[in-house]
Amino acid sequence: MERQDKGLAWMLRFENIAWYEAGAVRILDRRIYPVEVVKVECRTHREVAEAIRDMVTQSAGPYMAASMGMALAAWECRGRSEAEQLKYLEDAAYTISHARPTTTWRMTKITESCIEAAKKEFSRGSDDVSEAIKEFSIEQNNERYAGMALAGKYLAELFPDHGTVMTQCFAETIVGMMLREAKLRGKDIKLFCPETRPFFQGSRLTATVCHDMGFDTTVITDNMPASVMKNEGIDLFTSAADVICVDGHVVNKVGTYQIAIAAKYHGIPYYVSGTPDHGHQTIDSVKIEFRDPKEVLQAMGTATANQEVKGYYPAFDITPPELVTGVVTDQGVFAADRLSEYGAKPDGFLV
Amino acid sequence: MERQDKGLAWMLRFENIAWYEAGAVRILDRRIYPVEVVKVECRTHREVAEAIRDMVTQSAGPYMAASMGMALAAWECRGRSEAEQLKYLEDAAYTISHARPTTTWRMTKITESCIEAAKKEFSRGSDDVSEAIKEFSIEQNNERYAGMALAGKYLAELFPDHGTVMTQCFAETIVGMMLREAKLRGKDIKLFCPETRPFFQGSRLTATVCHDMGFDTTVITDNMPASVMKNEGIDLFTSAADVICVDGHVVNKVGTYQIAIAAKYHGIPYYVSGTPDHGHQTIDSVKIEFRDPKEVLQAMGTATANQEVKGYYPAFDITPPELVTGVVTDQGVFAADRLSEYGAKPDGFLV
Repeated sequence: MERQDKGLAWMLRFENIAWYEAGAVRILDRRIYPVEVVKVECRTHREVAEAIRDMVTQSAGPYMAASMGMALAAWECRGRSEAEQLKYLEDAAYTISHARPTTTWRMTKITESCIEAAKKEFSRGSDDVSEAIKEFSIEQNNERYAGMALAGKYLAELFPDHGTVMTQCFAETIVGMMLREAKLRGKDIKLFCPETRPFFQGSRLTATVCHDMGFDTTVITDNMPASVMKNEGIDLFTSAADVICVDGHVVNKVGTYQIAIAAKYHGIPYYVSGTPDHGHQTIDSVKIEFRDPKEVLQAMGTATANQEVKGYYPAFDITPPELVTGVVTDQGVFAADRLSEYGAKPDGFLV
Repeated sequence: MERQDKGLAWMLRFENIAWYEAGAVRILDRRIYPVEVVKVECRTHREVAEAIRDMVTQSAGPYMAASMGMALAAWECRGRSEAEQLKYLEDAAYTISHARPTTTWRMTKITESCIEAAKKEFSRGSDDVSEAIKEFSIEQNNERYAGMALAGKYLAELFPDHGTVMTQCFAETIVGMMLREAKLRGKDIKLFCPETRPFFQGSRLTATVCHDMGFDTTVITDNMPASVMKNEGIDLFTSAADVICVDGHVVNKVGTYQIAIAAKYHGIPYYVSGTPDHGHQTIDSVKIEFRDPKEVLQAMGTATANQEVKGYYPAFDITPPELVTGVVTDQGVFAADRLSEYGAKPDGFLV
């Protein structure tokens, strides 16, 4: 456990998202940030998978946790034969990638690319590839940040000069990138952030980031977006996504679908940032994660209902392409029904 | 402070909603019910107005608190001349009716009818009309319950035999009445109750009532209604209302508008129960109450956001008639654009 100065720049430094060092991965606990700054220490890659499953980190945090977890897995099996280590890494890749079902395809891409990096290191005669995987993780995330910066630029260009933008949930780098670009362009926007129950990522994380970046930031409860659109004149609704299918369906934090419906009703554009997942040509291959229903019967650890009633907790919902005005990628803005035109590189840029 | 057995029947007994006795009005504190059963004791009508403003009671609770508060006001000025007492009661009626701005018209009708009851009692030579106002309050609320029972019957008739109904917020008697009627008709419905942030009336109150009545009850967070409609096949969305304008606009707990939009998008009917407010021919005369923005930056007393960000808290939103399938009254179901046909009695039944 450690406490430090907070703020967006601090929060988005790789070593504060998820970081492998000396036989452990340390992950910022976003379940309680920014009220407390605590890191969860994982001593095995299985503990990394558990931390991802338990939502210690979220948004794009699990992608970095995954590759750092692969470095930890390599450390766990160091010194064994190359074949044994590769087998161990394959198993670790499976465990980490399946921590949460909805993002398995993307996580598999990340963990398998770590194995490719390990193979290169083995070919140099090394019998401990953990540092090589860590270096690869940093490179991969730098590349991801560069892609996000481009998407952030395209997104900021869509913003009004003086207007109001609604977000949904924590979108990590893309929020920072888009706001930095908005600031560079002198765009004086106000932000409305729904709180995103049950874990309040919107009020705790998104709103903190927006506020730290110097923008006029207002938190609302999740029952208010339509009312705010009607009364406060929202110009644009934007979110990131956990999966963007090539057919244009967007999978994101539960609530996105409802806000997109309200946006359509009010004639407000909805732009999602990210890149299409070529592993999901259609929505049919995406498995929506259902989490422990009890999690919706509490708020910040306090019971909010008679515990005999049922809860219901889909972590994500699905927004159909008809509600998506555009997908903002590193290659520009695409219509949701034209995503097959996105020319991803073979190892594609990962949101 | 007192603790007792809980349950719908107990909760809806007049003496547990708001009750005048021996120079005090005692109001069930619904801000913490059912976690704790506590009554707030008001020693003056001003304290009753404050309790209403602070949302000690809500839904139709303030209507009973208002008339019982008028009995208390009468007790405060007992023994003075009739003219002085009437002046005192007029002032008290104003104070109580203006505790919350959105329902002032309806509250004014209630408090003024209490003054009429006082006048009758004065004409009998009494110089303490508090008990007479209390008796009138009970009569008035009995009449209201009878009207609600009729509306509940018409509403239950609209339910599917085996289906799923979504509610919004606590609708007190109407929830109990509609569920009793549904049960009498052997309708085996499941209920989904959005939690209704920031005060969780949906998870604490509505869901408890539905569960106590023996129905399969599921609490969801306020970002889930559209997702549930899509995935669980909701047959009907229903709510009560704080104001129903004659032009068909419905003013109810914030979130109703958004769920109504989602219902329309999914082809699900939305029925609101209540009666038109003849004091509000159009929505233009309704003042939407904005509450302390800090209330959205907490949940059950725990901070949920950086306290430097702004909050925004409209207590109600406005659903336009195009999103309302029907208004279920004691006189049957009306189309939202045909409410002028509702033949209210001069002292009309008050939801």
